[in-house]
Amino acid sequence: MTKEELFQQIKLKHSFLCVGLDTDMEKIPKHLMKEKNPMLAFNKAIIDATKDYCVSYKINTAFYEAYGTQGWDTMQQTLEYIPKNIFTIADAKRGDIGNTSNQYARAFFETLSFDSITLAPYMGKDSLAPFFNYANKWGIVLALTSNPGSADFEQKQSGEKKLYENVIDTFSSIAPSTQLMFVVGATKPQELGEIRKRVPDYFFLVPGVGAQGGSLADVAKHGMNATCGLLINASRSIIYADNTELFAVKAKEEAQKMAQEMAALLLQYKII
Amino acid sequence: MTKEELFQQIKLKHSFLCVGLDTDMEKIPKHLMKEKNPMLAFNKAIIDATKDYCVSYKINTAFYEAYGTQGWDTMQQTLEYIPKNIFTIADAKRGDIGNTSNQYARAFFETLSFDSITLAPYMGKDSLAPFFNYANKWGIVLALTSNPGSADFEQKQSGEKKLYENVIDTFSSIAPSTQLMFVVGATKPQELGEIRKRVPDYFFLVPGVGAQGGSLADVAKHGMNATCGLLINASRSIIYADNTELFAVKAKEEAQKMAQEMAALLLQYKII
Repeated sequence: MTKEELFQQIKLKHSFLCVGLDTDMEKIPKHLMKEKNPMLAFNKAIIDATKDYCVSYKINTAFYEAYGTQGWDTMQQTLEYIPKNIFTIADAKRGDIGNTSNQYARAFFETLSFDSITLAPYMGKDSLAPFFNYANKWGIVLALTSNPGSADFEQKQSGEKKLYENVIDTFSSIAPSTQLMFVVGATKPQELGEIRKRVPDYFFLVPGVGAQGGSLADVAKHGMNATCGLLINASRSIIYADNTELFAVKAKEEAQKMAQEMAALLLQYKII
Repeated sequence: MTKEELFQQIKLKHSFLCVGLDTDMEKIPKHLMKEKNPMLAFNKAIIDATKDYCVSYKINTAFYEAYGTQGWDTMQQTLEYIPKNIFTIADAKRGDIGNTSNQYARAFFETLSFDSITLAPYMGKDSLAPFFNYANKWGIVLALTSNPGSADFEQKQSGEKKLYENVIDTFSSIAPSTQLMFVVGATKPQELGEIRKRVPDYFFLVPGVGAQGGSLADVAKHGMNATCGLLINASRSIIYADNTELFAVKAKEEAQKMAQEMAALLLQYKII
């Protein structure tokens, strides 16, 4: 999917919501256990319920790998079920030496047809370069994450600047805003504003709104740009809003509520 | 596998070789294409040929994920084929927020029964902590890698020390040398010696000998400790030593040659 197509979807749906499919067999409603593939049944119901309110789905690969070959198959079937006009993210945090990253790019961009994959930058520029060889596919590089451990390395000085700033400068120098996004947590709105000034045109994938304490209004205030520039992820607050037979109805209500807040912000900042 | 058991294997086989199963369909001998599962047939032949000369196999997950569900299945069957007295490494470079890392740990330590997994440290201490909750299972954290990109972040200052030194100090403060190893490239023997002083008791997984220019003798000189403390990885130089019907024979010869060099070094440093 191109950047222009993603922006069109945002304007069409009045939403910049990404729903995270962190599907955990121990948390899904018990009545689904009678299904042949409970995880897939859950994901399909969640997608049906939320697809009008989000512009992206993020599949957290760990939750599927935990079930081995069958889990990998469920990931593939879930991906295929997502409507083609919705931006898909493999939240896989991959990254390795070049010839290995080539294989990861094949895995997620060819064998599975994701629009994008999240990437871990530790090994440097050459380690992620292979992901930017695909037209209309995206790498989403970890910059400043929302967990406490972001203080251990990301926020430390790295030469003249902080490590996450060095990561942003390094990768924005090799990939344009049509192929590269950054992960920036919602829990640090001040830093998010400074990152926006650093890379005005790039999209940010933003976790940490809701349960982790980040505010949607603060993120929009500090992070929105002329093409929105934000995908706000919500996982557990939507997909586990309820664990009865009404789970999909409640998930829809939560997604709709977030999309309504987003529509108001898109209006406020004159994006729509 | 415990640290003591790993050291016993090193003393028994007079080797600290790790064979990397970076199995690429485009590089394996053509005659294997008539097999039902050419990757698995190749891996089994390589394991049969090299198992007496190595103490570890490293499965590079990217090469299996590139083939989707079938690749994941091949990874599982390969792992099951490896003799139980050989230390197994999932070279997967995983790492994410805590509840996601929990799922990765389940995937590689429970669903698949690897002894260890390689980990990417960017997101900090809490992101990798779940991997150290398993008795006799290991996390192998990226420290100083052998690729050119290690200059981009790893070798930069991170507060008072270099980033890779900060990573080593941070993780050695939460996990003992019976559960944690570090990835340290062979291409920087001087730094390897300094890292050995920093963490005298920890094992290092060392890529970069051979094709990338690192020397086995230099690595042993700077990195060996009283329990050897080294697993030297070789992938392509062994598994693709030949691509005719003699590939397994040639792989065996290459592994044997490396093991002989290792035996001499183990003698020289009085480990055996």
